[in-house]
Amino acid sequence: MKRYVCLICLLCATAGVLRAETGQDAWLRYAPLKNSVRAKYASLPAAVGVIGNSAVLNSARAEMIRGVRGMLGRTLRSENEFPRESAIILATVDSLKSIAPNLIIPEIGKEGFWLGGVNIRGNLCLVVTSPDERGVLYGVFGLLSRIAREEDIKLLHETQFPSAPIRWVDQWDNLNGTIERGYSGPSIFFENDNVRADLSRVSEYGRLLASVGINGCTINNVNANPRVIQDEFLPQLARIANAFRPWGVRLGVSIDLSSPQKIGGLDTFDPADPRVSEWWKKRVEAIYRYIPDFGGFTVKADSEGRLGPSQYGRTPADAANMLARELRLHGGILFYRAFVYDHNLDWRNPKNDRARAAYDIFHPLDGKFDDNVIIQIKHGPIDFQAREPVSPIFGGLQKTRTAVELPVMQEYTGQQRHLCFLMPYWKNILDFDLQSNGASTLVKNILAGKSFGTSGGGYVAVVNVGLEPNWLGHPMGMANLFGFGRLAWNPDLAADDIADEWTRLTFGTEQKTVLTISNMLLRSWEVYESYTGPLGAQTFTDILGSHFGPNVEASERNGWGQWHRADQNGIGMDRTVATGTGFSGQYALPVGALYESLQTVPDNLLLFFHHVPYTYRLHSGKTLIQHIYDVHYEGTQRAEEYIDQWRSLEGFVDEQRFWQILGRLEFQAGHARVWRDAICNYFQKISGVRDELNRVGNYPDRVEAEGMQLNGYTSVAITPWENASGGKGIDCAVSQGCTAVYRFDRGAGWYDMDVEYYDLNDGESNFRVRVNGQFIDEWVANNHLTARKPGADSSSRRRIKGVALRPGDEIKIEGIPDRDEHAGLDFIGIYASK
Amino acid sequence: MKRYVCLICLLCATAGVLRAETGQDAWLRYAPLKNSVRAKYASLPAAVGVIGNSAVLNSARAEMIRGVRGMLGRTLRSENEFPRESAIILATVDSLKSIAPNLIIPEIGKEGFWLGGVNIRGNLCLVVTSPDERGVLYGVFGLLSRIAREEDIKLLHETQFPSAPIRWVDQWDNLNGTIERGYSGPSIFFENDNVRADLSRVSEYGRLLASVGINGCTINNVNANPRVIQDEFLPQLARIANAFRPWGVRLGVSIDLSSPQKIGGLDTFDPADPRVSEWWKKRVEAIYRYIPDFGGFTVKADSEGRLGPSQYGRTPADAANMLARELRLHGGILFYRAFVYDHNLDWRNPKNDRARAAYDIFHPLDGKFDDNVIIQIKHGPIDFQAREPVSPIFGGLQKTRTAVELPVMQEYTGQQRHLCFLMPYWKNILDFDLQSNGASTLVKNILAGKSFGTSGGGYVAVVNVGLEPNWLGHPMGMANLFGFGRLAWNPDLAADDIADEWTRLTFGTEQKTVLTISNMLLRSWEVYESYTGPLGAQTFTDILGSHFGPNVEASERNGWGQWHRADQNGIGMDRTVATGTGFSGQYALPVGALYESLQTVPDNLLLFFHHVPYTYRLHSGKTLIQHIYDVHYEGTQRAEEYIDQWRSLEGFVDEQRFWQILGRLEFQAGHARVWRDAICNYFQKISGVRDELNRVGNYPDRVEAEGMQLNGYTSVAITPWENASGGKGIDCAVSQGCTAVYRFDRGAGWYDMDVEYYDLNDGESNFRVRVNGQFIDEWVANNHLTARKPGADSSSRRRIKGVALRPGDEIKIEGIPDRDEHAGLDFIGIYASK
Repeated sequence: MKRYVCLICLLCATAGVLRAETGQDAWLRYAPLKNSVRAKYASLPAAVGVIGNSAVLNSARAEMIRGVRGMLGRTLRSENEFPRESAIILATVDSLKSIAPNLIIPEIGKEGFWLGGVNIRGNLCLVVTSPDERGVLYGVFGLLSRIAREEDIKLLHETQFPSAPIRWVDQWDNLNGTIERGYSGPSIFFENDNVRADLSRVSEYGRLLASVGINGCTINNVNANPRVIQDEFLPQLARIANAFRPWGVRLGVSIDLSSPQKIGGLDTFDPADPRVSEWWKKRVEAIYRYIPDFGGFTVKADSEGRLGPSQYGRTPADAANMLARELRLHGGILFYRAFVYDHNLDWRNPKNDRARAAYDIFHPLDGKFDDNVIIQIKHGPIDFQAREPVSPIFGGLQKTRTAVELPVMQEYTGQQRHLCFLMPYWKNILDFDLQSNGASTLVKNILAGKSFGTSGGGYVAVVNVGLEPNWLGHPMGMANLFGFGRLAWNPDLAADDIADEWTRLTFGTEQKTVLTISNMLLRSWEVYESYTGPLGAQTFTDILGSHFGPNVEASERNGWGQWHRADQNGIGMDRTVATGTGFSGQYALPVGALYESLQTVPDNLLLFFHHVPYTYRLHSGKTLIQHIYDVHYEGTQRAEEYIDQWRSLEGFVDEQRFWQILGRLEFQAGHARVWRDAICNYFQKISGVRDELNRVGNYPDRVEAEGMQLNGYTSVAITPWENASGGKGIDCAVSQGCTAVYRFDRGAGWYDMDVEYYDLNDGESNFRVRVNGQFIDEWVANNHLTARKPGADSSSRRRIKGVALRPGDEIKIEGIPDRDEHAGLDFIGIYASK
Repeated sequence: MKRYVCLICLLCATAGVLRAETGQDAWLRYAPLKNSVRAKYASLPAAVGVIGNSAVLNSARAEMIRGVRGMLGRTLRSENEFPRESAIILATVDSLKSIAPNLIIPEIGKEGFWLGGVNIRGNLCLVVTSPDERGVLYGVFGLLSRIAREEDIKLLHETQFPSAPIRWVDQWDNLNGTIERGYSGPSIFFENDNVRADLSRVSEYGRLLASVGINGCTINNVNANPRVIQDEFLPQLARIANAFRPWGVRLGVSIDLSSPQKIGGLDTFDPADPRVSEWWKKRVEAIYRYIPDFGGFTVKADSEGRLGPSQYGRTPADAANMLARELRLHGGILFYRAFVYDHNLDWRNPKNDRARAAYDIFHPLDGKFDDNVIIQIKHGPIDFQAREPVSPIFGGLQKTRTAVELPVMQEYTGQQRHLCFLMPYWKNILDFDLQSNGASTLVKNILAGKSFGTSGGGYVAVVNVGLEPNWLGHPMGMANLFGFGRLAWNPDLAADDIADEWTRLTFGTEQKTVLTISNMLLRSWEVYESYTGPLGAQTFTDILGSHFGPNVEASERNGWGQWHRADQNGIGMDRTVATGTGFSGQYALPVGALYESLQTVPDNLLLFFHHVPYTYRLHSGKTLIQHIYDVHYEGTQRAEEYIDQWRSLEGFVDEQRFWQILGRLEFQAGHARVWRDAICNYFQKISGVRDELNRVGNYPDRVEAEGMQLNGYTSVAITPWENASGGKGIDCAVSQGCTAVYRFDRGAGWYDMDVEYYDLNDGESNFRVRVNGQFIDEWVANNHLTARKPGADSSSRRRIKGVALRPGDEIKIEGIPDRDEHAGLDFIGIYASK
């Protein structure tokens, strides 16, 4: 029965009516079109014919039927032979020619497709064709996307092909079912150290990937468990490959380079040792016996504690090529990550600079990598920060195939609890001209192989979808996965075109919906940057742990090299050649010179390249420190505005997603304020320069929890101090619960009240609010934020509107702890109702 | 924690945003008003003060806070003493005067209220006051209803009071948890022969009743289990009374008049026997010890097999007064139902007429009933039919208090699976002038006690809410409960005002919503009547069983006296004095004369009073038989139109109720067609007069299931024949499933397909449809209709839109039976797609 479930849903749906959606269908909803729009497709043939028989072609056919049924309410007739009537024809170019030899088909790039109306044997047919089956499937998705966006399909004559061969996603899933930097539930692949019994979500994921042209997926953490390639595990891996195969998605795995020693019984994993390469040869052969179309390996080595070739004095090229040779015999690829750096850097040495590592290590190896090796490079020289310059190694590998690694999972950009649409950022990166060799070398052209004449690399995203129905926790987060696929296919697309396309597919084509959501998406990256870490300071987050909330000093005095060098006088990493680490010298001269000079470096990367005093004046004329204050207040205000923008879509978006997204946006607005206050207070204290507008540290509407009359609650210091209002919070270790009381002393009237409380990853504390004993509000802290202790990672806002208060009123918060979550509070805010 | 749940929901809700609703809150949703509307209530005081302390006043206060919180997002301050600020004051007139002795308060009728703005001790207060606490509660509901409907509350000066003292509901719940003629799940009061442990739904029901001024509820089936008044049961009854008490709803129970014999150990239940009255005296005393405000008894006796005083040659008055005397000592009421008739009438005697029974039996007793006896009279002389004249006994009891009994549960009007808003009908009844004693005596004035100078009776509705979240299965069915309460309070309200009021409260105040739903409601009774039993033929339903689907002959040749006298020549009960049963003579002369004459009898009651040939010409000029055909086709068409009307409210109604109501409307449209075909075919056959438009019996787009190529399925005759297309269906007794195949022989194109299948009350059969083996649709028959066998009560329509068919296609239905439900089919319809 199971397999019919999705069909049933589609059949129930009818023209133009909203229905609660989990988000699981993401942008492939095939929501019913309005009757008035359906007329546009009245001439669509009633049959779909597939020439040939394969898993991928069958997917293409099923998708075609599913899409038309959902959107137009019609069930296409499925034909296994060439229909003798007007039909939609799905076929590779070769098989199409075997039936209609005289058909003129335009040239189509590999994995591309052609959509066109042609007359075959006297019947007008709509042809979807490609040199390969994968391209036919992509063509079907392209055709259905046109219908979903209500575009015309008459007189169709369209050729598309992807910009680069590598269009891949990585999942950092562990075999125990957890996901490193995964924010949306457990793994869809693994649980309890095995592959899951139910792989239906894997198949659905494959469908989503295929719909935007992604053709491969590495399914396990780059910090790999060697067991994944052991004999006993291979039948399980094969099951995942089987689930992906109908969608043309090749399976990849991350491997541990030390496996020959760890699980192979050898006393070495030296890539130059013949016993080691022989061991790998056998592994690769075993894998291909189970998975004939296996995609390849991803390698993280000599990085963050992972063992690597350096242990034997070998280079990444030695290790990569040893593996690549074996894979090449079967058509496999080796991804070698350029994220290699010393994580025990001495922070006291001002010349040390983690940003230099990739170039320093990989540039000398250019030309030494085999042709089925892809060097996988994070977009910036550090690590997925909200703003970094393009990694210079893209210009430093001219005889090597390279792929850019992009963070769909928003590791440092809000972790899907904050809206942060990364396309504008990624477009900056892909369109950036590194000007290598004195010529124009845009990053996207380097990746495509055009700039330096390689056979082309491409695009890898770290996605980390989980078992949550909507894949990424935040339905809006899926715009980054969609956009990644679209850019990998065609990096010339504009960010606003992608936003428009995704919104239409995900939320429908009403103009108000499209404009509102597109506008929110397109501003969201800069909004996020402005209330977190502006001016290229990278991030002010807790880089040692969560990567989520603020923690300015976490990025100082550590071995990880993620530094901003903030002190009482100024801030920024001097990465100039003249006086700093010399990093800017890794760029071709025109680019390096731009960054080297304080006059020409763009404000938004100022602190990445230069250390300047807080009183330094930006191009805007504003001082650096005032700019930091101002953008944090502005960004927080803009995050607050998302709420009303979203609310305006009442009745335009189904309720389930409407409320879920509203909840995320409300959290974000509250959390932006936590960020704002932490960063502003920190820098006001360290710089000694006060906010000209006197906002920072002045919260006349707040009552600190630690200053209330406490019963059971105890005051606790929050670390770092700036992460809590007043540096402190309160904590209830009494299982029956505690109370905090405040006697209101302002004028009588209507007020709104904020309760800032701590929602940890364990426990579901209960909170109640009473005024003069009268029950006012109650909630449960069940958002399960990743934090294990009270602080900025767990700080959450409850807003209670419209409370009648008068002088002398007793406001009482009751907190009942649960497990390790101690019903913690930071402050209450009391604001006159608007 | 439980008790906060509803508050939490309200607090989450915010201005003007749709959220899925179960319908449990019915018209008391207190949905957030739009910000622009909220401004209108900005001056609402911030405090609510209650003078006095009682369960009912506390309900009033809590409701005031809840309503304002929900709609305006403000939490009123709750004060226990007289506030020294502007406040909303809830108080009885007496307690208000004790605080503000000089306040001028208008005269207010019993249980009425006054809303007004007054200055008390220098503060402008909004006063809700009444002679009694119940009236204060009603006033709060009245005030909140005004806000919910976005009416102004400035300069408020409004007095309201109810039209009649008796405003009561009956529930026909059995102690085992079933409900006789209950269509919405099990009892909220009983399960397993005891009162339910969880009475939260009882409390919520009390709140709904109070909100429309209903002050009593008889909780058990009129076919009563004597155990309900036994000692051991009384503590349980008291728990129900406790749940109702805060809402001012008095508890009543139905009793079995033979209890002294059945459970009392006496050898008689003769009301004239002193041992019997002594036994009842003790019972009544015992009840009042547990429930000091007990409401009273409801009695069904000498009716449909229930024992009664006739067994001892005593009259209803003898029985009623014996009980009433005991109740009167404690303030109780006795409801004696006038639904007394011989259910073993000889149908062969043309003078026999059940319609006469109430008048024949009760008119002679007028003046003999004690003053705390209410004679409870069904609105018409038969039994809740879709169209009946007003029962003449209302004019025949001039010294007796009477109450009208109305069927909120839609026993004969679609049982909440069909939309049928009964206010237009009930208004006809209440506004009907019986012209007794040569004067104007409108039914509503008789009930109020005005016409004949009694102390007033009132209104009783049979409601039969169940544990389904939305109370009556169909969210729209609740309009009948609301309307009942509003008419009992004020019978001068117009049906369209009630529809408007209910719609605004239940679905919001958008003009489009209000107009669309009001329009659907207001036409729905006549639509239902037209596709079931028009012209006063009463009903053509299965009166012996379901009272739901068509069964023309069920109303003939039975002892129940529910006859229409249809034969090959004509149809109708001759109830004239001149040639018939003489029933029309029970009305005062002007009314009786109107009905007596074929010239003056209204068409819509023609067949109730007269037997006429099929070729009889109506006032419209149309023949009777053609009228029957035409209105069935028109009514079915109008039921079909509801679907698009409702669909137009996409985004205006929350999704949960939107889809549930759409499902009910789709069922109704399909079932209307079943009714149409059964009635039209029956009368075409019996009359021999063909439909002038040749529609009846001609279904060129249908394929009979019994004519398909069957594998496993067997043909079965459906009884009566007209209830299935072609008189037959097919049935699958093979547990693995059966198939029925049809080879399509019409032109190629897009088609819509109906599958008419049988959905019984047991089992969930599975159906699949394939075309040439290709999967097209699947569904489960899980609507749990009340029917136990295939026929018109269980016939259901599955509509499959947009199927590509061409000549020679094989259409295959696969049915998999479940338990006693045999995946039955009647026919498939295949229509060119529009």
